[in-house]
Amino acid sequence: MSSEEFTVTPWSVEGDIDYDKLMQKFGTEKISPELEARIEKITGEMHPMLKLGYFFSHRDLDKVLTEYEKGNKFYLYTGRGPSGKIHMGHLLPWIFTKYLQEKFDVNLIFQLTDDEKFLYSDGKSMDDVSKFTQENILDIIAIGFDPKKTKILIDTKDIKRIYPISLEIAKRVTYSTVKAVFGFENSTNIGMIGFPPIQAAPCFLPSIIEGRPTPVLIPAAIDQDPYWRVTRDIAEKLGYPKPAQIHSKFLPGLGMQGKMSSSIPETAIFTTDDDGIIDKKISSTFTGGQPTVELQRKLGANYSICPVFWYLRYFFDTEKESDERARKCKSGQLLCGECKSNLKDATKPFLSEFKKQREKAKDQVDKFMFD
Amino acid sequence: MSSEEFTVTPWSVEGDIDYDKLMQKFGTEKISPELEARIEKITGEMHPMLKLGYFFSHRDLDKVLTEYEKGNKFYLYTGRGPSGKIHMGHLLPWIFTKYLQEKFDVNLIFQLTDDEKFLYSDGKSMDDVSKFTQENILDIIAIGFDPKKTKILIDTKDIKRIYPISLEIAKRVTYSTVKAVFGFENSTNIGMIGFPPIQAAPCFLPSIIEGRPTPVLIPAAIDQDPYWRVTRDIAEKLGYPKPAQIHSKFLPGLGMQGKMSSSIPETAIFTTDDDGIIDKKISSTFTGGQPTVELQRKLGANYSICPVFWYLRYFFDTEKESDERARKCKSGQLLCGECKSNLKDATKPFLSEFKKQREKAKDQVDKFMFD
Repeated sequence: MSSEEFTVTPWSVEGDIDYDKLMQKFGTEKISPELEARIEKITGEMHPMLKLGYFFSHRDLDKVLTEYEKGNKFYLYTGRGPSGKIHMGHLLPWIFTKYLQEKFDVNLIFQLTDDEKFLYSDGKSMDDVSKFTQENILDIIAIGFDPKKTKILIDTKDIKRIYPISLEIAKRVTYSTVKAVFGFENSTNIGMIGFPPIQAAPCFLPSIIEGRPTPVLIPAAIDQDPYWRVTRDIAEKLGYPKPAQIHSKFLPGLGMQGKMSSSIPETAIFTTDDDGIIDKKISSTFTGGQPTVELQRKLGANYSICPVFWYLRYFFDTEKESDERARKCKSGQLLCGECKSNLKDATKPFLSEFKKQREKAKDQVDKFMFD
Repeated sequence: MSSEEFTVTPWSVEGDIDYDKLMQKFGTEKISPELEARIEKITGEMHPMLKLGYFFSHRDLDKVLTEYEKGNKFYLYTGRGPSGKIHMGHLLPWIFTKYLQEKFDVNLIFQLTDDEKFLYSDGKSMDDVSKFTQENILDIIAIGFDPKKTKILIDTKDIKRIYPISLEIAKRVTYSTVKAVFGFENSTNIGMIGFPPIQAAPCFLPSIIEGRPTPVLIPAAIDQDPYWRVTRDIAEKLGYPKPAQIHSKFLPGLGMQGKMSSSIPETAIFTTDDDGIIDKKISSTFTGGQPTVELQRKLGANYSICPVFWYLRYFFDTEKESDERARKCKSGQLLCGECKSNLKDATKPFLSEFKKQREKAKDQVDKFMFD
């Protein structure tokens, strides 16, 4: 990597990410204190993921709130590419999406892009992807979305519902555009080139379901933004509102640098990992610490690059606890072993409860499907 | 047009076509007398469209016959892009396809690429295309295909059935390939780029329906060949037989040059035209004749570029009658008015009967649909 030192596309997040630069590069807006205050006024509380800046950037969130205040409810739309098992990093935006669904009392469309993950993988068969799809659905349901207000859309299963919309989109997007936005090349397969409209289609599905222009808010990690940029450019030509977004950062993997990734299993704690594996993964993770205890006591450690710190901050610590942890880490008062131990103690009961919900989800799948 | 003087792609046929050059360019084979004899042996007769060279070129037709002789029946697969009304030029390959279905006693899949025609047109809405789709289905059924052995596949309606196959294909075709084969450019919309696998998918559907590798024979005008070239390249990687083809020439439009086209209405006799319109269109058509009767008597006329001659030859004349017509035309014994009059007299009762069948087809649509 040269001058920019990080790359973010929908398929790869690498390097040490400068989120301010990323917002500038993508042309998104920072969530301002004024916007936070408007959300707090409606929801009655400020979600920690907003307060801590895990959700940090947006497009048109203000417009969606203005419509909401006028009584025009939005739909939430988010998704998952079922390329592997679900890890804790995946859960954060879903937990936040559930909070939005509850507080705003709105519908959610959750898309599973099984077609995409088949097209973009070298080795996976459609059967492999279908297995992950079925497994991932259990994790989604386990989050606790409202079955009356949530539909899970599986591309290959529900293609008939989204294909006509995707054709309207595809007709209005040239190869030049996707080449520039997604970095497609001559060697790219034509399935990948033809795919973006399939991911864009659910942005317009709410307007079709409701029979009137219906705003859509997409909570998702910022690496998915290129899709919505293309979608926003053509939305109004098709008579639909531009989809709004609220962007999260990435949860660092246990190996740090870039996002937690199912494709490097040892960097991720999966929702199905047992206590032994959780202990082992956390014990052996990279941290922001010094090579020796002596040096750490003397120089302090670097929490800002430490996955243990961020896991604790986003999932388990209160803001106050986390700020205190940061201060102690920096000053050398805190050793990595203690943080790792805290993370183990918090993660095991959290995932134990999650696994129970995931088991219960097996009987609920039908409720979440489109007919 | 420069050195080659004609262009043939799935979307445009222009110029005076040299079919030998086209076979060479596309890499297809001429239907040999030996192959014709094999067909005649199985079917008991030699269809005039073969004998007259209207179907003139193929890929792997010999292999399909060999499998057939071993008891492994093929499926026929053909299609129609529903971009307008049906004219007589469209009917020729369909009539030939019906003959193949009857004589070989085989199943037929008839694809309507409504998605393609929407993506490739500047002005048409999906509603426009859907209307043509419904209208075109009546013409297809009116041909007399066996409802027990024929399924009409409408892309947007039956997308769920073909989407998984199209993904398998799309994953194995790069942008380089479609750029070279179809002439796609940076300004091409990504729907068009992503479309070829949708047209390729029905090549493999018979193997899926039958649960064993099932040969497929595609009767279609040679301008559709690029699709099958791409499909053939990947068929065996996917474990399916390479689709075989039998290629027709184009029926010249009443304005001549290139194929009869719905997009230039005055060059085509539509199946719904009434007698008055048929008379008018034939009266005013371009022919191979001389500017004056005197010159024609003296110099003779050019039947080879005359649509009236070819309409009569392919639809109505016996071979003997047609050869005699050609001789008289060339020698100046025959004037264009007489040929036009013959064509009018033959076309009106033919289309009158066709229109009756087309009316009856309205009650048969369901029988031809995939569930």
